[in-house]
Amino acid sequence: MQTNRNNLLLEKYQYTRNLTLHIVKPLEIEDFGMQGMVDVSPPKWHLAHTTWFFEDFILMNYKPGYNYYLKDARRLFNSYYETLSKPFPRSKRGLISRPTVREVLDYRSAVDEEIIALLEQSDELDEKLCSLILLGIHHEQQHQELLITDLKYNFSINPLKPAYKEGIDNPSDYSSILPLKWMYFEGGTTTIGTNNNNFSFDNEQPAHKHYLYPFSIANRPITNGEYLEFIKDNGYEEAINWLSDGWETVTRQKWKSPLYWECINGTWFQFTLSGLKPIVKEQPVTHISFYEADAYARWIGYRLPTEQEWEHAFQNTPVEGKFLENLLFNERYESDKTIFGTVWEWTSSPYTPYPQSARQEGALGEYNAKFMSNQMVLRGGSSATPCNHIRTTYRNFFHPDKRWQFSGIRLAKEER
Amino acid sequence: MQTNRNNLLLEKYQYTRNLTLHIVKPLEIEDFGMQGMVDVSPPKWHLAHTTWFFEDFILMNYKPGYNYYLKDARRLFNSYYETLSKPFPRSKRGLISRPTVREVLDYRSAVDEEIIALLEQSDELDEKLCSLILLGIHHEQQHQELLITDLKYNFSINPLKPAYKEGIDNPSDYSSILPLKWMYFEGGTTTIGTNNNNFSFDNEQPAHKHYLYPFSIANRPITNGEYLEFIKDNGYEEAINWLSDGWETVTRQKWKSPLYWECINGTWFQFTLSGLKPIVKEQPVTHISFYEADAYARWIGYRLPTEQEWEHAFQNTPVEGKFLENLLFNERYESDKTIFGTVWEWTSSPYTPYPQSARQEGALGEYNAKFMSNQMVLRGGSSATPCNHIRTTYRNFFHPDKRWQFSGIRLAKEER
Amino acid sequence: MQTNRNNLLLEKYQYTRNLTLHIVKPLEIEDFGMQGMVDVSPPKWHLAHTTWFFEDFILMNYKPGYNYYLKDARRLFNSYYETLSKPFPRSKRGLISRPTVREVLDYRSAVDEEIIALLEQSDELDEKLCSLILLGIHHEQQHQELLITDLKYNFSINPLKPAYKEGIDNPSDYSSILPLKWMYFEGGTTTIGTNNNNFSFDNEQPAHKHYLYPFSIANRPITNGEYLEFIKDNGYEEAINWLSDGWETVTRQKWKSPLYWECINGTWFQFTLSGLKPIVKEQPVTHISFYEADAYARWIGYRLPTEQEWEHAFQNTPVEGKFLENLLFNERYESDKTIFGTVWEWTSSPYTPYPQSARQEGALGEYNAKFMSNQMVLRGGSSATPCNHIRTTYRNFFHPDKRWQFSGIRLAKEER
Amino acid sequence: MQTNRNNLLLEKYQYTRNLTLHIVKPLEIEDFGMQGMVDVSPPKWHLAHTTWFFEDFILMNYKPGYNYYLKDARRLFNSYYETLSKPFPRSKRGLISRPTVREVLDYRSAVDEEIIALLEQSDELDEKLCSLILLGIHHEQQHQELLITDLKYNFSINPLKPAYKEGIDNPSDYSSILPLKWMYFEGGTTTIGTNNNNFSFDNEQPAHKHYLYPFSIANRPITNGEYLEFIKDNGYEEAINWLSDGWETVTRQKWKSPLYWECINGTWFQFTLSGLKPIVKEQPVTHISFYEADAYARWIGYRLPTEQEWEHAFQNTPVEGKFLENLLFNERYESDKTIFGTVWEWTSSPYTPYPQSARQEGALGEYNAKFMSNQMVLRGGSSATPCNHIRTTYRNFFHPDKRWQFSGIRLAKEER
Repeated sequence: MQTNRNNLLLEKYQYTRNLTLHIVKPLEIEDFGMQGMVDVSPPKWHLAHTTWFFEDFILMNYKPGYNYYLKDARRLFNSYYETLSKPFPRSKRGLISRPTVREVLDYRSAVDEEIIALLEQSDELDEKLCSLILLGIHHEQQHQELLITDLKYNFSINPLKPAYKEGIDNPSDYSSILPLKWMYFEGGTTTIGTNNNNFSFDNEQPAHKHYLYPFSIANRPITNGEYLEFIKDNGYEEAINWLSDGWETVTRQKWKSPLYWECINGTWFQFTLSGLKPIVKEQPVTHISFYEADAYARWIGYRLPTEQEWEHAFQNTPVEGKFLENLLFNERYESDKTIFGTVWEWTSSPYTPYPQSARQEGALGEYNAKFMSNQMVLRGGSSATPCNHIRTTYRNFFHPDKRWQFSGIRLAKEER
Repeated sequence: MQTNRNNLLLEKYQYTRNLTLHIVKPLEIEDFGMQGMVDVSPPKWHLAHTTWFFEDFILMNYKPGYNYYLKDARRLFNSYYETLSKPFPRSKRGLISRPTVREVLDYRSAVDEEIIALLEQSDELDEKLCSLILLGIHHEQQHQELLITDLKYNFSINPLKPAYKEGIDNPSDYSSILPLKWMYFEGGTTTIGTNNNNFSFDNEQPAHKHYLYPFSIANRPITNGEYLEFIKDNGYEEAINWLSDGWETVTRQKWKSPLYWECINGTWFQFTLSGLKPIVKEQPVTHISFYEADAYARWIGYRLPTEQEWEHAFQNTPVEGKFLENLLFNERYESDKTIFGTVWEWTSSPYTPYPQSARQEGALGEYNAKFMSNQMVLRGGSSATPCNHIRTTYRNFFHPDKRWQFSGIRLAKEER
Repeated sequence: MQTNRNNLLLEKYQYTRNLTLHIVKPLEIEDFGMQGMVDVSPPKWHLAHTTWFFEDFILMNYKPGYNYYLKDARRLFNSYYETLSKPFPRSKRGLISRPTVREVLDYRSAVDEEIIALLEQSDELDEKLCSLILLGIHHEQQHQELLITDLKYNFSINPLKPAYKEGIDNPSDYSSILPLKWMYFEGGTTTIGTNNNNFSFDNEQPAHKHYLYPFSIANRPITNGEYLEFIKDNGYEEAINWLSDGWETVTRQKWKSPLYWECINGTWFQFTLSGLKPIVKEQPVTHISFYEADAYARWIGYRLPTEQEWEHAFQNTPVEGKFLENLLFNERYESDKTIFGTVWEWTSSPYTPYPQSARQEGALGEYNAKFMSNQMVLRGGSSATPCNHIRTTYRNFFHPDKRWQFSGIRLAKEER
Repeated sequence: MQTNRNNLLLEKYQYTRNLTLHIVKPLEIEDFGMQGMVDVSPPKWHLAHTTWFFEDFILMNYKPGYNYYLKDARRLFNSYYETLSKPFPRSKRGLISRPTVREVLDYRSAVDEEIIALLEQSDELDEKLCSLILLGIHHEQQHQELLITDLKYNFSINPLKPAYKEGIDNPSDYSSILPLKWMYFEGGTTTIGTNNNNFSFDNEQPAHKHYLYPFSIANRPITNGEYLEFIKDNGYEEAINWLSDGWETVTRQKWKSPLYWECINGTWFQFTLSGLKPIVKEQPVTHISFYEADAYARWIGYRLPTEQEWEHAFQNTPVEGKFLENLLFNERYESDKTIFGTVWEWTSSPYTPYPQSARQEGALGEYNAKFMSNQMVLRGGSSATPCNHIRTTYRNFFHPDKRWQFSGIRLAKEER
């Protein structure tokens, strides 16, 4: 039975590690080193960093006599674990041509061999080790999504507008677009979060009571066509609907539309992973900041949901949709599946610890808790999220001015 | 009876307007134009802006044929009401030598005359007008505190270290410093906020239910002496206790101690409104950012309270303490009055709208709501807060990196 | 005879010190502290700095037992003499409200008394002391011009567009505007610079031989009307005529016209010391950078003169024109006097030491030599230059992107 | 005879184009895209830009019907020729992963074929075409040196300190280091520049008279050992010897030594093209800015030579030394050959046009003239300069704060 668990973990490990390699298959060597802006990381870095996680947290502790495979890897491929070593400056990750892609792939193979051996050799894996490997797998899944979003950004700034893969954004039928409807919930004391019987991150724990007032939430995200109305109504030119910090950002960054949108001779285009394509009005709007989502909601007369409202509304909805594994990235609507795997949905909730949550000790304590300021929670998952990575209780989080994720809008409103 | 209300309002108006002039009495003309950093405003600007509020929201609407007293005042002394006129850039308020101080004082007198006439003439003031005047009074009280904190900053950067007033920081007896004790609260559903029977800001409304888990909260703020232990233990040199954005700030700003602290030949000094003085260990630590408050709490093994915990704990505590009116600013401990009028206490709560809160229309809708991102709530009031301005439900808010307010630390902890 | 020299020096000293006070007479106290941008200094600073020069270089050395009048003055009012004390950051001179204007004026009086006593008491002043006082006088004259140009900048950014003095820019008759003509010079070995029989700065010394090729130089500066043609011909939109660093500056700063120009409903206005006024086409263009002067010259098919060509051409021209003492600042053309007192004329010569020049020792060695990189020489003097401050050999110098001086264009061309 | 000239040109062309490929042979694909700072360009960009020069200036004009080989190449690989197309931002050249290295090499081959065909086919090449090809060859040689200096910078910021090539900095014998001696020149009218009988850049033309005062110039550059004395004497800590802009740079950039120097446990190391190596005291100091060169000269009591002094002193010296072709880059002294091929030597001359120089029309007019502001002239050539690229009249130029070139110090002094 113990072996069974090992086998399942082994399978998951191999599946995840292979999926990462599958994602980078269309790339040229030259693409692996690029860092188009400070928020994104080069693909090579993602490949190495996810590997370093297994090496530093597992092999260094569970394999006696193990030595780092790459000299200085700890410093180059550590991200934010300040307790472990001074990380190499994030903004300079694109300035590191060595180790080469080949060397990083060899590093991956070497660490994979060791981890697999560890999983195969022992009849009884200790609980802590299993949970660390599981954490490493989920950590890698997070970076799979970042690989996609970072690639999209990197390609977008090249005037040649290269495609990651042809044909991924060629929707055939949007006739079934759902009319926007409100789902009513009557409020009261509900339970938010989870106690981690299956895997969950520390930031989703523990399950706890929360008092909700009556509210309604929309049945689907806002579309490009609906968002265009906001643009046409001078949404980006008038301060009235914007948060103060948001308006400052709009003005400074000269935002006039979502990221990747471009108006050419009066027609709106959007850079996609298949290159520059005309906007499809029926698709959900995406690549917008929290500030834009919030301003849109005010303009239309509603608001964003709190993360508790969102979780309460969808806690019995099964996780179905089009996820990363499809490599489609077209944010396509399915008539009745627009909750998961469409776009990340900005909530009005700042990212804070749950009541009664305990802080993890040591480097893993840095995993989520240290980001709990100035960031907003997003829920639901996008077409770039791995399918078995997402949950109803899952809390994603980004600074309110970030736009390179597949992030969109779901409306809510007060009820009395 | 109506007249009675008018009289009370008139009295409040005159008292508040005079207190503002009293605050700036020790200043030289040259001090009125200074803006030592972008967060502070010149005293002259505060004098004019609070007056502009009465002019633009009241005289322009309630006095037929009224014209702006100062040409362009709307633009120069508007702050953030983007719906009214494009405000003059905040960062350049120190670059405006005209109108002169004399002209601004004349402007104050002229508007005062009009407002007083308005209050005296009418037997029945309409409800809306009264509440606008009351809002203007409370708005001016907020700027009274800012006058003090901004002056302190402006003087602090002058190498001559000028004093606002001598003798305000000369504590005689700290023998009665309270031992740190925990006050236990058992949690459950509580009521937070107010429905505004007396005056309150929109951000405190409405009264609403909130579920609290058991917690304890400290009986007094942390002292300079206690905070020094954190500094000595390399608090500012090690990333482990800091939020990610906080550590980035500490590193970039090269923070090594609270604002205004200076170590001269091994002794710590602090710039006060009476000039540079040795640190008094028994006084509460102040002029620290949220990041520092949070890092201290982690280092010592506790946490900051949420704003709901704070409000629940002190909802029956009377508002007593040493406030602005004393012009003492010495953050002195009184043995049993350390809740109000000591230091603003950072909570762990981001500043967000309360459930079921309605958004005000028009320019006043910008008053509080537009700041509801990236800021943290502070509670309690400081020695620079006007006495009749503060309430248990009062929510102050600043970005987590700001330090020029009288802001300090009260600890809390989970109970189970 | 010695006494005679003392008397002359005393007279010059008093005249110069009084002229400075005369310049600031129209100012309000509030105007004395302003620093509209980093290149300008507050009037109060100019008043104190010129006084500090006499105090530090003369009283401290020649008056036994003399002590600094103002505590910390050395640091606050030193400018760039790094050898004497760490100067207070230039960019923060506007953030110093104390000492007050009154205190600085008292400081001036106190130092004046001492200097006058020094000049009166001794029958035989030593050579070195006389030359230091003379240097102090010429130093103060430089700051008189800066007082004017800095004031103009400070007022220009105030939306109220205040006037320094009414009626100074009200030209009556421009009918006598000279046609542009070329003055031919045949080149050969000439003498440049001076050996300082009367006063001259170290950067004008020594007289030395220089080989010149034949050239022609224009008889007057370029007018606003002529410069407007350049603007209309897309001068600011096309890279072709600009130096690389100039084009970078134009693009980054979004320059579209000279400093202080503003196009309102199709009409060009210019901020003057009497407020905003329509452009007078017959006046010389001014407040342009070297980059603009150079681009204009290329556009029209000529070039700027070298400083040697300029000096060679005008070495026998008497110093006559409208100078600072007139307090006119209207850059008006006099039919035959457009060489001095009109506008500073950018030359194509970088500011470098003359051959065989010796470097002064100590703090005074910093006076001019340390600025000999990245700056361009200007010749001729403007309507804000004191009359007895200018000479044919006088070398003014500014970075090529500076525009707040009264700087304009005189063309030259090759001859063969 | 015409054919002979064609053959010679063809030979030069092929030699130069092959040498470029030889230089990049040790690189990994990953190294080709890096841009470690804004001043450097990725190797791939150099390969493409030098090719684009031949394509745009020659093939587009001389081969009827020729079309650009790479779509958008004009924009991506243009550098500063604003008249031709809006160049891609220089600072983002490292963010372009496509076209790939393979595609750029194919581009090179395709253009080479066309140029070779052009040279082979015609019996009589027109004069203009020949001079354009020659200019393209010399342009490519400039980029060969930049390839080396840019690579050095890119590798230097990688914590792994990779080597371009092993063993290039392994000097065996420095016993023959020359004692520093002065070479005296008596001055008078000399001839500077050239009339271009062989190839020269426009900035070296025409030959013209210049009056020189007596001077002496050092027989060799300053060594690392000599420069260390300046460091030890607090050269980087005291303002006295620095130009004002230089001191501002030292302070802002926190310079404490030449670029690439690192003090590890009391020993000075230098990053070389063979990795991190101990400083060799006998080698010439290099990778210093003009500001450092100038400050060193003042500190030691001398000065830098003017470019005219330099040219006059060495106009009969044959161009011999260790150049790029050796791929040694060790800045080694040869006992009697330290004029060319050692280090570029900063002169005290700002980069300005020569008297009587004519400006080239069109895009080639941008070649040199537009950089004639804020830059300083360097003379002599370094170990990274191609041998047949350098001349006594050759004028290199960089901004005074640049350090990534092989730039050093030769002293001069006044004589009377």
